[in-house]
Amino acid sequence: MLGNTILNGISSPEDLKKLNKKELNLLCEEIRHELIETIAANGGHLASNLGVVELTVALHSEFNSPHDKIVFDVGHQCYTHKLLTGRKEQFNTLRKEGGLSGFPTPEESEHDPFTAGHSSTSISVACGLAKAKTLNREGGHVIAVIGDGALSGGLAYEGLNNAGRSKDKLIVVLNDNKMSISRNVGSMSRYLALIRTKGSYRRFKGKVNSFVIHIPFIGQRLRKFIYGSKTALKSLLYRSTLFEDMGFAYVGPVDGHNLNHLSQAIEVAKEYKKPVLLHVCTVKGKGYSHAEKNPRIFHGVSGFDVLTGDSLSSNKDFSGVLGEELCRLAKEDKSICAITAAMKSGTGLSRFYLNNIDRFFDVGIAEEHAVTFASGLAAGGMKPVFAVYSSFLQRGYDQLVHDVAIQNTHVVFAVDRAGFVGEDGVTHQGMFDAAFFNTIPNIRVYSPCYFEELRLYLNKALYELEGACAVRYPRGAELPLEDNEYIANANNFTLLPCDNGEKSALLVTYGRCFSQALKARRLLKEKGVNAAILKLGCIKPIDERAIQAALEYDKIYFFEEGTASGGIGERFCLLLVEAGYKGSYKLTATEGFIPHAKVQALMHRYKLDAEGMAEVIYEG
Amino acid sequence: MLGNTILNGISSPEDLKKLNKKELNLLCEEIRHELIETIAANGGHLASNLGVVELTVALHSEFNSPHDKIVFDVGHQCYTHKLLTGRKEQFNTLRKEGGLSGFPTPEESEHDPFTAGHSSTSISVACGLAKAKTLNREGGHVIAVIGDGALSGGLAYEGLNNAGRSKDKLIVVLNDNKMSISRNVGSMSRYLALIRTKGSYRRFKGKVNSFVIHIPFIGQRLRKFIYGSKTALKSLLYRSTLFEDMGFAYVGPVDGHNLNHLSQAIEVAKEYKKPVLLHVCTVKGKGYSHAEKNPRIFHGVSGFDVLTGDSLSSNKDFSGVLGEELCRLAKEDKSICAITAAMKSGTGLSRFYLNNIDRFFDVGIAEEHAVTFASGLAAGGMKPVFAVYSSFLQRGYDQLVHDVAIQNTHVVFAVDRAGFVGEDGVTHQGMFDAAFFNTIPNIRVYSPCYFEELRLYLNKALYELEGACAVRYPRGAELPLEDNEYIANANNFTLLPCDNGEKSALLVTYGRCFSQALKARRLLKEKGVNAAILKLGCIKPIDERAIQAALEYDKIYFFEEGTASGGIGERFCLLLVEAGYKGSYKLTATEGFIPHAKVQALMHRYKLDAEGMAEVIYEG
Repeated sequence: MLGNTILNGISSPEDLKKLNKKELNLLCEEIRHELIETIAANGGHLASNLGVVELTVALHSEFNSPHDKIVFDVGHQCYTHKLLTGRKEQFNTLRKEGGLSGFPTPEESEHDPFTAGHSSTSISVACGLAKAKTLNREGGHVIAVIGDGALSGGLAYEGLNNAGRSKDKLIVVLNDNKMSISRNVGSMSRYLALIRTKGSYRRFKGKVNSFVIHIPFIGQRLRKFIYGSKTALKSLLYRSTLFEDMGFAYVGPVDGHNLNHLSQAIEVAKEYKKPVLLHVCTVKGKGYSHAEKNPRIFHGVSGFDVLTGDSLSSNKDFSGVLGEELCRLAKEDKSICAITAAMKSGTGLSRFYLNNIDRFFDVGIAEEHAVTFASGLAAGGMKPVFAVYSSFLQRGYDQLVHDVAIQNTHVVFAVDRAGFVGEDGVTHQGMFDAAFFNTIPNIRVYSPCYFEELRLYLNKALYELEGACAVRYPRGAELPLEDNEYIANANNFTLLPCDNGEKSALLVTYGRCFSQALKARRLLKEKGVNAAILKLGCIKPIDERAIQAALEYDKIYFFEEGTASGGIGERFCLLLVEAGYKGSYKLTATEGFIPHAKVQALMHRYKLDAEGMAEVIYEG
Repeated sequence: MLGNTILNGISSPEDLKKLNKKELNLLCEEIRHELIETIAANGGHLASNLGVVELTVALHSEFNSPHDKIVFDVGHQCYTHKLLTGRKEQFNTLRKEGGLSGFPTPEESEHDPFTAGHSSTSISVACGLAKAKTLNREGGHVIAVIGDGALSGGLAYEGLNNAGRSKDKLIVVLNDNKMSISRNVGSMSRYLALIRTKGSYRRFKGKVNSFVIHIPFIGQRLRKFIYGSKTALKSLLYRSTLFEDMGFAYVGPVDGHNLNHLSQAIEVAKEYKKPVLLHVCTVKGKGYSHAEKNPRIFHGVSGFDVLTGDSLSSNKDFSGVLGEELCRLAKEDKSICAITAAMKSGTGLSRFYLNNIDRFFDVGIAEEHAVTFASGLAAGGMKPVFAVYSSFLQRGYDQLVHDVAIQNTHVVFAVDRAGFVGEDGVTHQGMFDAAFFNTIPNIRVYSPCYFEELRLYLNKALYELEGACAVRYPRGAELPLEDNEYIANANNFTLLPCDNGEKSALLVTYGRCFSQALKARRLLKEKGVNAAILKLGCIKPIDERAIQAALEYDKIYFFEEGTASGGIGERFCLLLVEAGYKGSYKLTATEGFIPHAKVQALMHRYKLDAEGMAEVIYEG
């Protein structure tokens, strides 16, 4: 923070109001510097935050948070907001265990009115907050800051559709950077490009008006024709934007890196007694050349070299393996299609896209559509694979039930980032997919531990099975292998009995926890305890023979990197007991929501690493 | 079918093509007659089906199903389609056990390309089918038929946003009847009204063109100004509809009850090499005066008198009790708000709407928005109650997790039609809510058996608890009470031990199954078997003391009107076993998807009625 002479003087948004324009501009520079340094060290969302420095400064200059409520959509662009709202001293703890969250969190500050993490929620949240203000006669503003990418989500549209008819004071700031996480897709994005192209609508409105009036003889008549009626004709000619069709006042587009323009536009927006859409154009990665050139790569990073922009981590991961294998298969099999919801790179599909552009579909941040579209493709005879983060697939739950499982179409879900994801924290942890799949009939679910298993299960899902199938795997790399214990197969389950045939303790688990179980077994052996291991490859349905095998053990310990309530460990217990099991059973899994921390730390906290497993079993 | 001389000659859509216009019009009359008679007897969706008779006849005349694929959104308007596609002989079995489904079902006919039941899925499904046709070079058309009400759902928008940029042949028929289930809401609906008002856009386009050209002196210049540029200006003036902004060709609006106009418009739509939106205006309930006057009441009916239009069933139901109690509370408590997703009447909120119009919100078919908006209201200090059908709340799963549970806002979910719903069948059964709530931290869930318990739990949820809370209750009336066994309370659990203190068999259940359990106990007693009953009022979290009480019994039988996998019975088993239970445990619940049949028949089939319960326990 050395040298940040202005930023150091800001302990709340009130302090911004004492600064002159020059100081505000200098402040923006200092903030940019701070962002780059901190994200380089801690990882985080760089490009999106660099893009909204001026916008955030302008919002906090013009509004009075926390009385006025600023809701950041997705929330990963809230770093400047955190720096300005009393959290700059802790900013170096960003995304670290016990430190600041990378997303807005009411627990952290009264300036964060709502949690975020998933996309497209802000307009609905702001609708609620604004309506509450109206009903309680509280006064003040509610502002939703939403990117153009998030507008591809249906929830944002539902929010617009409902906000537009209300009389509440609500300002939707459209942060239009022509990108969501990677380059934007869909008609809405093309449409925004159109209204951006030739500048201001306000200017145009005036131009038509004066142009028309000055037409000799018929100017007035034409003007009346165009503006005079209260009917559809008026709307068809005079309206300018889709947002006005939706009931909003429209202000913009405004240069999102010019504080003067931003302030003026916000002043205009504040005047309306109805919902306003303020269209702000920004550049993702603004001010850091590496990020401006490669905003996709710098969307979310794990730490990088400030000078070169090179990533500090580039290990092979499960996402990459999925992409590779899918490319290999798609070369021969022309029925394979790949779908992503704005996560082409994150889910490892970049090469698939290059090689099979006609069979690759980035649907935008639209998980619901992705699931239902995939089922339509399958009903038409294709083999769709929807690669999606566990936590984001939550948004497709009804579509999984209604459009896939009932229909029983052959759709494959490649569920990435299942289990702990680490620093992105509570909204991104993949703790629920095993449990919510568990509630849905017809869908089979596989949980590989190793890269090789991901390949095997993917092939099995595509070529040996009918109906819907999910293959779920963790974020990042497979854990270090120890040669003699590398057991990769596409079986429903694998039993590793004790060397001496002892049938006392049985450790049951699935996914990457299996590699921890192998190590736990060694730790236990050192303490004189023999434990057998049952590895579930197919976690839904659970193979009847796995239950039969488990029945022979006196004590069963189930370890699950996911929620206990509704999860696989509960189901396993029921099946055991219904089969007559009378031994002891202990489930070790997660409870509640999981805050941000390194994956390894979380595995340890929940006793899902080798040490934790050994401890649970040793203590009996 | 007597007297249906033309309809009787139609055994597949091919037969339509032999009819002249006069015969086609006569056919429509016959179909209307058939619809009214059958729905009066069997119940079903009357108004929506009467509205699309001509549209369906026109579609099947102009297209070649099943090569061309017609996807009905929601699907409850598919009756004419069923009559025309070889199912008229079975039409009197509509919605009856083993008979025709009230919704499209691929299992029933090759003319039903996709299952439907929930709203707003058709565009995404059609996108998938159309893309598959393109990739497979199959030729032919894919048609999505979607009501204006379904356009309020975000999934429909995601579908439009993705379809609009494709080059696939896809026709979206917008069946605009100014209604969804009740009168429509939201900006989109206002917008549609606008483009309907003054008739055809096509006409208008021509009118401007010729008008402008004939302006003396500057006509050409103005025309060039308006139409000449390829920039935003052109779009702003020349474009006509939001659908064109979304990348669709737009055809319409067309009178949806005029076969000639419909045929011409479909011919035009077929010509485009890109997605087309065909805007058709229909009258819900067309041709049956009672339904035209009260389309909301005749949206879905349980059988009615053809002459008077009076409903044959009008018992008090749980929905009505919810609405009454909420009205009573809202009179004193000005912070209570009620939210519905286009189900004002179905969820019993009509009176709340009349009495508290400023605190009543019908958000359209937008369950995602409803959940997130409710959480925003709660964060703003209001007490929102979202009344929603169990099966439709599936669409809000991610919002329950991300916007309510993480946030821990005080939102109350009044979950209607939990459990079997009967004739509406597989897409509407409320079998999953207990299970999906089970996976979500922080949310408490209550399951009343009686009207009085619904009132008590609702009060508890609003005034004794913090955080999110769901009260879930079945469709229809409470089961007949027997005075001496009426036990209504707001406890977490109630134990009814055996009279003689015997601790052999324990029957555990929740919700309306409790009244069956009471009867089962009597049946068992007659056979000399004593069973205690444990009734769970709070099914999440399960009260530790309920587990302790259950531990004392040798045999535990859990009966659950919901899915076994991931449900409450599994959780209960785990908690018992972890507490050291060594007795036997049997879970009786549902598996897979549940087809349409009367609720009582389904209760019987799954052994969840008194006889079934007694049988399970008697057989040990």
